[in-house]
Amino acid sequence: MMERADIILAAGLVVTMNQQFDLIPDGAVVVRGDAILAVGPSADILSRYSAETVIDCAGQYILPGLVNAHTHVPMTLVRGLADDLRLDVWLIGYMMPTEREFVDPEFCRLGTLVGCAEMIRSGITTFADMYYYEAEIAAATVQAGMRAVLGQTVLKFPAPDAETFEISLAYCRQFIEDWRDHHLITPTVAPHAPYSNTDETLRRCAELAREFDVPLLTHIAETHSEVEDSIRDTDQRVVAHMDVTGVFQSHVVGAHCVHINEHEMRILKQWNAAVAHCPTANLKLASGIAPIVHVLNQGLTVAIGTDGPASNNDLDMFEEMRLAALLAKTASGDPTALPARQALLMATRHGAQALSLGEVTGSLEPGKRADVMVMDSKTLHNTPHFMRDPDAVYSRIVYAGKASDVRHVLCNGQILMRDRALQTLDEPALLAQAAEYSRQIDEFLIQREGSVLSKLLALTDLEQRESFEVQVKAELPDEALVKLLLEHPDVEILRRVRYRQYDTYFLFDDPDNSRLRFREEYRMNAQDQVELVRSRLTLTLPTKERQFHSTILLSHSRFMADANRPLRFYREYFQPIEERELHKERRRWNIHYQGVLFYVNVDTVSKPELPGMFIELKTRTWSASDAENKSDRIQEMLSILGLESHRAIGTDYLEMQSADGAQS
Amino acid sequence: MMERADIILAAGLVVTMNQQFDLIPDGAVVVRGDAILAVGPSADILSRYSAETVIDCAGQYILPGLVNAHTHVPMTLVRGLADDLRLDVWLIGYMMPTEREFVDPEFCRLGTLVGCAEMIRSGITTFADMYYYEAEIAAATVQAGMRAVLGQTVLKFPAPDAETFEISLAYCRQFIEDWRDHHLITPTVAPHAPYSNTDETLRRCAELAREFDVPLLTHIAETHSEVEDSIRDTDQRVVAHMDVTGVFQSHVVGAHCVHINEHEMRILKQWNAAVAHCPTANLKLASGIAPIVHVLNQGLTVAIGTDGPASNNDLDMFEEMRLAALLAKTASGDPTALPARQALLMATRHGAQALSLGEVTGSLEPGKRADVMVMDSKTLHNTPHFMRDPDAVYSRIVYAGKASDVRHVLCNGQILMRDRALQTLDEPALLAQAAEYSRQIDEFLIQREGSVLSKLLALTDLEQRESFEVQVKAELPDEALVKLLLEHPDVEILRRVRYRQYDTYFLFDDPDNSRLRFREEYRMNAQDQVELVRSRLTLTLPTKERQFHSTILLSHSRFMADANRPLRFYREYFQPIEERELHKERRRWNIHYQGVLFYVNVDTVSKPELPGMFIELKTRTWSASDAENKSDRIQEMLSILGLESHRAIGTDYLEMQSADGAQS
Repeated sequence: MMERADIILAAGLVVTMNQQFDLIPDGAVVVRGDAILAVGPSADILSRYSAETVIDCAGQYILPGLVNAHTHVPMTLVRGLADDLRLDVWLIGYMMPTEREFVDPEFCRLGTLVGCAEMIRSGITTFADMYYYEAEIAAATVQAGMRAVLGQTVLKFPAPDAETFEISLAYCRQFIEDWRDHHLITPTVAPHAPYSNTDETLRRCAELAREFDVPLLTHIAETHSEVEDSIRDTDQRVVAHMDVTGVFQSHVVGAHCVHINEHEMRILKQWNAAVAHCPTANLKLASGIAPIVHVLNQGLTVAIGTDGPASNNDLDMFEEMRLAALLAKTASGDPTALPARQALLMATRHGAQALSLGEVTGSLEPGKRADVMVMDSKTLHNTPHFMRDPDAVYSRIVYAGKASDVRHVLCNGQILMRDRALQTLDEPALLAQAAEYSRQIDEFLIQREGSVLSKLLALTDLEQRESFEVQVKAELPDEALVKLLLEHPDVEILRRVRYRQYDTYFLFDDPDNSRLRFREEYRMNAQDQVELVRSRLTLTLPTKERQFHSTILLSHSRFMADANRPLRFYREYFQPIEERELHKERRRWNIHYQGVLFYVNVDTVSKPELPGMFIELKTRTWSASDAENKSDRIQEMLSILGLESHRAIGTDYLEMQSADGAQS
Repeated sequence: MMERADIILAAGLVVTMNQQFDLIPDGAVVVRGDAILAVGPSADILSRYSAETVIDCAGQYILPGLVNAHTHVPMTLVRGLADDLRLDVWLIGYMMPTEREFVDPEFCRLGTLVGCAEMIRSGITTFADMYYYEAEIAAATVQAGMRAVLGQTVLKFPAPDAETFEISLAYCRQFIEDWRDHHLITPTVAPHAPYSNTDETLRRCAELAREFDVPLLTHIAETHSEVEDSIRDTDQRVVAHMDVTGVFQSHVVGAHCVHINEHEMRILKQWNAAVAHCPTANLKLASGIAPIVHVLNQGLTVAIGTDGPASNNDLDMFEEMRLAALLAKTASGDPTALPARQALLMATRHGAQALSLGEVTGSLEPGKRADVMVMDSKTLHNTPHFMRDPDAVYSRIVYAGKASDVRHVLCNGQILMRDRALQTLDEPALLAQAAEYSRQIDEFLIQREGSVLSKLLALTDLEQRESFEVQVKAELPDEALVKLLLEHPDVEILRRVRYRQYDTYFLFDDPDNSRLRFREEYRMNAQDQVELVRSRLTLTLPTKERQFHSTILLSHSRFMADANRPLRFYREYFQPIEERELHKERRRWNIHYQGVLFYVNVDTVSKPELPGMFIELKTRTWSASDAENKSDRIQEMLSILGLESHRAIGTDYLEMQSADGAQS
């Protein structure tokens, strides 16, 4: 009596990738519903099972679908937008402005469909994503029929889909609740990276991941400068500092891990965190070569990812597997390192394990979901075949296999591609819609080409600061009042300095209303002598404002650079439509007020000559609740100063002089 | 009046790769006979030219055919034979024995056809080869319709197609004379590498290349140990030593150049030598990353090669271009290094220049040969397209283009592939013939698996010595006679040592008749005390012999290894069918006789107890004429010893005892 099944893939070489690495020549895989029912020799299988759909896989390999453990899939829509650039120019000059302008639910939906189509064509059935509007991405992934772990990005900065961290986390919780029971989707949280989060945001993301028992996706130690910054700011390397935040109490999948040492590997191992190795993107952005042989020797689970198509520039796991195997050899000086079978394991079973999907996918075993790909084995570029060493099959797949060899793909029992034809997606329609997006993005960027930011980028290294600040500015009727604050028992003075600042503002009529400040700053000592001189350029884009009491929450987008050329140079280069000067003397105290860092500025403005003095109280903030809390403290300090009833000044000095009309 | 042409490729984006890097949207290329007649906008071209064959290239790029500047093309037939192994195990254990057994004219013919088919499918129209039987390779290349620079390999060792260097050079001269006027083939000489040649063989290869004005192909500084060996043997790094030989007086194309310093780059630049960069093979064999950014900064011409398909494992220039661009960024820590356009330039116009074919191919310009490839631009993995930066086209081709995107290929005006169908080669027949070869090679290697060499390889590091020696052995009737030689005015004693050697020979009945010697060697000082002990394993395969006068030219194949385990271990591991012992005391003098290095051994054999003493005179040699010359000198030394009339002993001590029958 024949047992009924739905699909039989027969007569191929079955590369199971199970624990024993069983290879079954002339083998078959039986699918019923969403699951693998049986795996075995074709003759045996065909005598026991019958199915509506029997696919002849003669001359082909039958493999588990590949697992792409790290990507930003909607970025297919910005593939090839800007390449061969410095990371900061690429990111600040092109990716961030484009994302700010274009990333919305439709962008994410379409970009995901395009990315899924590409991934299916290259044999991928499961991927892990970190981006925005993950609910849209989930819906598109289900439409494509793929399996995915989808991590909603959380940042300490405003994101395209969330103005603050709290909004982002709330969105993320809703997303997880909405999608947690879907058979294809693991919804989760993705704090972008330690440097783009605070310890608190990391910790709260980890709490969310633990609450719903989902893996947490993040970037770890991608660049060397990230490690340097971490040591400067926290006295610890990246992973060591992350450990302090408690983030590893969730199951962390860390992309990149290029710059981690053995101590950090042991921390990751101890917490059972997994690594998603992205060799192409690491090379392309000159980040370095991840020490994968050491990571594997420490017993960590290593998966492989393509990273986003804006930094790769495709979603081809054959290229990543091969490069992972090749790089490991030269990085370790050992040509036997990371052999082909292990590279394929990282792209299949270990990839699934890393994403907490080890019970579900990653190998061809009865009971697992039917995530399968079939690829041609007898291609010209993979001829001939030797049988002496059975493992040679892995070498053929990894060292000479290509995405274009993939013929059929099944995910969760559904056929997604048959004979290279996509079954769930309309490829020509996707190409046409993507082309329309690229036309709009082109137009936007071409218009921007004349922008101040672009010109600044072309000139110099930039340091970007996008931040929230809570601040208040008020007239200071009597200098002596400052003492009331500075000598208050709740105040500890950390540092005091005095500057003379000579600012020249360039104003432009570009669409951004950019304002570029050239500042010569002289730090003065107690003898009124110049201690230090430096010049800086600061480009400020329009600010968003929000009022708490009389204090103001500002969101700045600032790009700063050392100005090592004379003012005349910048004037000629930028050709502003208007120029204004502002000279002032600033006394600054860095203080702890009730243990929280604030800056106190007391300014005397000499050009234009403004009467009296001004006081500013300000601090950084990363979340709305924190801002509210800090605004309350600023109110208290105003009371100490006796200025609680003074009206805060909402404009900056430039606007004040403008109102005055005295300036030429 | 319309001008007649043969083929018009129309309506594609023409990527000329000419000096100005002209891009022609909706462009066309006109071919008449073997040449490009015109390149321009489609509308203009179609109003001026008519042709039988007009190919619509809408949505496609029209590019110069790619140049693969370094490969060993017949090695397609051993692709994937043995991977993820140490270089020595791979080379000595697998590649060399397989090549010794299988490389003949038919192997080279078939392997070339398979390789050409693969290269055409990935858009390559020109390649540079270094292998054996290049005349066969030339005939097969012409059958495929491709352009090639074919370098006949020259070695100081015996090669599959030449027992000695002289035979190899004679074959090479004949090959060049036969093929020098062919429109597709540049026949030339390829001294394999400095370490596998002598200064003299390098010099003579260069003379040959200059005589016929052809580029000379060789490998340069592929591995770090090659540099160490060069410094040890010549006191100079590889390129510096090559300079002394005069080889650079020919136009040298050096593959790899992984381990060259700035001084060596300047030498290469000064001689106008070119570099063929092979990134995949260098990574895969753990050789390292070539300093290509420095090489380019020195103004050298850099081409790109796939290397042979046994160490890559395919012939895909898209993978090599991408990897060249990616590796350069991380190697230099600069993501702007080696941008996409430059990578494509290296794979086209600069590749052609490196091979002295700069006037012939490498760009789409009127007057050059019609070597053209057309690839799909609107693939899913290369969507969308941005127009803001015209150079983005190079980024799309290099970072996301694939061999499978190539649709049409022309070489020398002939269509080699149309709509992915090969026009000159029968792909199914090639696949079938290659499969038959792999069956035979499999059988050969499976039989060998039980061999002593394989077992030795599995155990230990090996050092291979395959060499020619000229030697004579004779009975020494009186010890005092040795003085006649050592005190002769033509003799200078370089070193004298005394050993006690305790040898155990393992004999086997394997097809190779292998003989494995375990030697404990004690170096004695003047006080008859042991100065140094060491144990070595030496595997000797059957020797070829050739007689000059009474001296004997021996060709040894020897594999040596330190024996750091006790004799008992090796006995149990190798399970020889017979074991013999040989104990002797050996006095050895290293002498210069008329300035040439010889070894003089005076042996007393104690087990089995052989009467009297024996004298051996021996030296290394690399060529037949040199062997004859050295044999003459050995005759002179025998005269000085008064032994000219003594019959030389043609057998070694083991055979002597065997004849004696005294040994158990």
